[in-house]
Amino acid sequence: MSQPMSADELERRLRAIGAERYHDRHPFHTLLHGGRLDKGQVQAWVLNRYYYQSRIPMKDAALISRVEDPALRRQWRGRIVDHDGCGPGDGGIERWLVLAEGVGLDRAYVMSTAGVLAATRFAVDAYVRFVRERPLVEAVASSLTELFAPAIHRERIASLLEHYDFANEKTMAYFNRRLEEAPKDVEFGLDYVRREARTPEQQQGVIDALIFKTDMLWAQLDALYAAYVEPGHIPPGAFVPGKDP
Amino acid sequence: MSQPMSADELERRLRAIGAERYHDRHPFHTLLHGGRLDKGQVQAWVLNRYYYQSRIPMKDAALISRVEDPALRRQWRGRIVDHDGCGPGDGGIERWLVLAEGVGLDRAYVMSTAGVLAATRFAVDAYVRFVRERPLVEAVASSLTELFAPAIHRERIASLLEHYDFANEKTMAYFNRRLEEAPKDVEFGLDYVRREARTPEQQQGVIDALIFKTDMLWAQLDALYAAYVEPGHIPPGAFVPGKDP
Repeated sequence: MSQPMSADELERRLRAIGAERYHDRHPFHTLLHGGRLDKGQVQAWVLNRYYYQSRIPMKDAALISRVEDPALRRQWRGRIVDHDGCGPGDGGIERWLVLAEGVGLDRAYVMSTAGVLAATRFAVDAYVRFVRERPLVEAVASSLTELFAPAIHRERIASLLEHYDFANEKTMAYFNRRLEEAPKDVEFGLDYVRREARTPEQQQGVIDALIFKTDMLWAQLDALYAAYVEPGHIPPGAFVPGKDP
Repeated sequence: MSQPMSADELERRLRAIGAERYHDRHPFHTLLHGGRLDKGQVQAWVLNRYYYQSRIPMKDAALISRVEDPALRRQWRGRIVDHDGCGPGDGGIERWLVLAEGVGLDRAYVMSTAGVLAATRFAVDAYVRFVRERPLVEAVASSLTELFAPAIHRERIASLLEHYDFANEKTMAYFNRRLEEAPKDVEFGLDYVRREARTPEQQQGVIDALIFKTDMLWAQLDALYAAYVEPGHIPPGAFVPGKDP
């Protein structure tokens, strides 16, 4: 029988996944942050990423629906509050819609999710299902890409402001806010995983969960690249830049 | 093809379900409110009902996990806040535990749910599963027993205070608070069902959902009656009054 690794070793392995597999290494990301996407390509990114944003509170509610401890439910509830806000015009999804309008997209069209790539839906829906169905410690572990998010958000704010006309304090509000929110969330999630993943099987499970999550994020950028950069084959029904919805 | 009924007619049918099937008509309820249960029987009720209380936020999170509209998610989130509270020592579940201690039960034993009847678990777990899996409008409709709850809570407060030593302002806090919370919740749920159940199939679905819910509540009192009143066959492993856990 293999022995469990220490919590520190587990954390080291989890952090290594970010270095190897996080979507900041994707070519689409490099183009975006280098200012080398045109307006339509940025719109496609914002539009597809909206679908991901819109499902985050559903994912977090699915997690809460499986938690028997009121204290853990209360803690995780804060994520839903961050994304849905406390009223109309508030919350992370709303801030993403402000970004969408800032890049010239129609709010109602974005919210309809009509032009989203099928591959985006498949990836995001697989994530919600993962959190609904897998062991709780794996569901929590799948949130740990937030370990890697602040760096990408900081870089994103700086590089978008440098390269794109649409970028300003208002449209960047989503990323600025996540810089405050993500660290408190991830501290809790990391402590939970360090504490609860005790057997070798559980530890492998949480490693696989974080790999699954990075795959899911990567697949979204792959789909964007193929549709809107190269070879640039936009699937039937998906958003076409420059064409009014 | 049959025609859909009007929203008013649908509401009339839903309210009629309460008159016919709500658990205030159950003999166990009559004994409880008539002051004719002994201490151990009251304890069995509080202990088993704790299991139901403890699953309510999980049920509500399961519903939210299926909702695509942030406004509806925000509205429903209030139910989780009501039950889980905003910190340790707050919320409906905590108030139920205060009642449990007031009737002489050990808090840790209650929270362990170790002595809960298997029939209680089956009923409550079926409810959580129903909300997770059935069409959203049916999931919402299953909450509409709250139409009938304020009457039972008002009567409960009065009759428990009259008949039982354990009843006081502190132990009755759960019911007093629900008198404020349930009406605002049910107004929203009823409007939603009136608006969204449009086809004859959907309307039959919401009627069946509310019947399912009343069955689920009734089955819990059936199990309590059989185990602790008559014939009084306590299943192996279930709470035994007077015996320290």
